Parts: sequence; structure tokens; C-alpha cells
Amino acid sequence: MPYVNIKITRDGATSEQKAQLIKGATDLLVRVLGKNPASLVVVIDEVDSDNWGIGGESVTARRQAHS
Amino acid sequence: MPYVNIKITRDGATSEQKAQLIKGATDLLVRVLGKNPASLVVVIDEVDSDNWGIGGESVTARRQAHS
Amino acid sequence: MPYVNIKITRDGATSEQKAQLIKGATDLLVRVLGKNPASLVVVIDEVDSDNWGIGGESVTARRQAHS
Amino acid sequence: MPYVNIKITRDGATSEQKAQLIKGATDLLVRVLGKNPASLVVVIDEVDSDNWGIGGESVTARRQAHS
Amino acid sequence: MPYVNIKITRDGATSEQKAQLIKGATDLLVRVLGKNPASLVVVIDEVDSDNWGIGGESVTARRQAHS
Amino acid sequence: MPYVNIKITRDGATSEQKAQLIKGATDLLVRVLGKNPASLVVVIDEVDSDNWGIGGESVTARRQAHS
Repeated sequence: MPYVNIKITRDGATSEQKAQLIKGATDLLVRVLGKNPASLVVVIDEVDSDNWGIGGESVTARRQAHS
Repeated sequence: MPYVNIKITRDGATSEQKAQLIKGATDLLVRVLGKNPASLVVVIDEVDSDNWGIGGESVTARRQAHS
Repeated sequence: MPYVNIKITRDGATSEQKAQLIKGATDLLVRVLGKNPASLVVVIDEVDSDNWGIGGESVTARRQAHS
Repeated sequence: MPYVNIKITRDGATSEQKAQLIKGATDLLVRVLGKNPASLVVVIDEVDSDNWGIGGESVTARRQAHS
Repeated sequence: MPYVNIKITRDGATSEQKAQLIKGATDLLVRVLGKNPASLVVVIDEVDSDNWGIGGESVTARRQAHS
Repeated sequence: MPYVNIKITRDGATSEQKAQLIKGATDLLVRVLGKNPASLVVVIDEVDSDNWGIGGESVTARRQAHS
């Protein structure tokens, strides 16, 4: 029954990688808490780098500063 | 004053259907809890089927398996 | 498969009222989008009135101002 | 360490405006609670006006009614 | 930089189990997407069984029906 | 109309500090994007330090390690 939301920057994660995140998060909840996987929901949000901030700056700006 | 967030897979819900979700969720909170609809916010997120997992698999994979 | 999150101020909503919100939100998604109710998740968050702001003020402060 | 999520309608906010939101939200948490900005995350979600409801109507419908 | 939110029913998960969820979710994002763990945030929400619905019923009601 | 969610660890933030967060977040959206403050919602979630992870560890564990 758990619900897991994973937010990442939109950087070209493939369908295969997203499938691995879904599988991995589901297995984690089953293993640690014995949850039933059948109704376990995982939602992945991909966020533009302009819309994600860390340390007071957007990821876009941080990448420019470090490139 | 309540806030309602509805997450669905992105499957071509129409503007009219989304308007019905907004109206229906608002009416529900008014009816059950007597909330003032004026400041009641509803946000609908449409999520790609690659990014939605249930039972450890993406919705994309489940649909392929069942088609 | 949808996921619905309802945030309300913590004002003594009863178990019966919360059951009505869960039932009503589920029925809404079934009726408007034909979703399967079996894996439809609803999560209700009750938020202290100090922690909810509207119009730049906490709900606590607004209620004091209007009482 | 805080996490701030800002949801706005998708109305052409510029990269510069989003950078200001990220900076402003970070400064706010540093100033009020003395939080360390280094690991302070801000995520901005831009939501289509069809998908945002207020007062039981979508923002799209409200704008049409008031134009 | 990712942000992971795990919502579970409040059923006595121990500090040790919650530490395992945090570690496991962090490792998953590092392994699948090569993310830097240092700023990777995991937030666990524990939700009362009255406030969690599945299949149109609260978890409280489902447990009573099946006990 | 925006919605802002601020998640912090539960460390004794006072009502006054939370009022400042609500006021500050509201002013930020008004100043940067010209939003109408009247229907601008801010929700603050306070999260137990066992339930907040960063760098693969709970905040509880990190504080013990650094004390």
C-alpha cells in the first residue's frame, strides 16, 4: 500500500532506468517492512534543471558555474 | 482552504474531464466538511506511464504484458 | 491507479467524515475517468492551523482576528 | 536540509524569475530558522491552467469567464 | 540531489527500519542514476490508518472487515 | 493561487517562526511573480528527525555522530 515519490532532474533517464527505480523502491518496501507489492505505487517526477534549486541556485546555474 | 492533489497517468484526459475532477473534488470537501469552496485548490498531475509504477512494474510494462 | 492527496486543517474531522472523503474521491475518479478503484489510493493529511497559511497569515492568526 | 515545493500555473515564468524564487525561498529558511543553505532543496512545479482548480473551476475557465 | 518521499501507514515502523528505508532509497538512486548521495533527501511520512484509503475504504475499515 | 509546501525537521519551530515562513513565502511569490496573495496557500510539514534522511542517514543518526 505504500506510496513512493521520486523527484529527479530531467536528464535523460531512460525507460529502463525508471523501471529499475520502480522495481528497486518496491523491493525495498517489501524487504524492510513486508509490504504487499501488488498495490505499491511509485511515481517518478522529472523536473527541469531551471526548476530545481540547491544551495540557493538553480541546477542550471550551478552547472554553468562548474563547467 | 483545503488542497487536493490528484495524480493520474497521462492518458488523454480531456479539459472537460479535468474540469469535472476539479468540480467533483471541490463539492466533496464542501459537502463532507463544510469547507468554503472559494479558496479550495485542486491540482491535477498527469504522469507518463513510464514514470508510474504499480506492483514493481511501470504502467508501460504492465500494458505491454497485458496486450 | 490514481493517487489522491487531500490536505485539510486539523479540526476534528471524524473517522466517518474521513471515510466519506476516501469513498467520494474514489467514486469521482471511477465516474469521470473509469479508473479501477481497487488500486486507487487516497491519503488525507491533517495540518495544524499554525502550519497552514492563506493570504500571508496562518489560519490560527486569521481565526483570532475574526473571532 | 529543508525542502520547499512551489506550485504555480504555467504562465511563462522566466528562468530569472525561477532563480529568484529559489534564492528567495532559500534565504527565507536561512533567515527565519538558521538552516544551512547548502543542502536546502527547492522544486518548482509549473501546472497547466486546465489542471489547476480554484473555487471549483479550472483556471482556464475562470480566465475565460473574466476576459 | 534527488528527493524521495515514502508514505506508509503508521504501524510501528522502528527507527532501525526507517534508517534502512533511507539507506536503501539513497543506494538505489546512486546505483541506477549515479546520483551524489550527499545531498540526496529522503522523507518518510507515517499516515494514520483512518487517513489512508485504498479501494474506496480506509485501511482501518479494511482491517476490521478482514479480522 | 500558488501553493507552497515547506518541509522542515521538527525542532521546535515556534508559532511566530512559522508565521514568518508563511508571510515570507507569500511575499516572495507576490514580489517575483505578481501573484494575488489572497488565495496563496502555504503548508508547513514538520518531520521527525528519524523520518528525514540526508546522505543515506537519518538526521537522528547524523546528529548522534556529530555530537
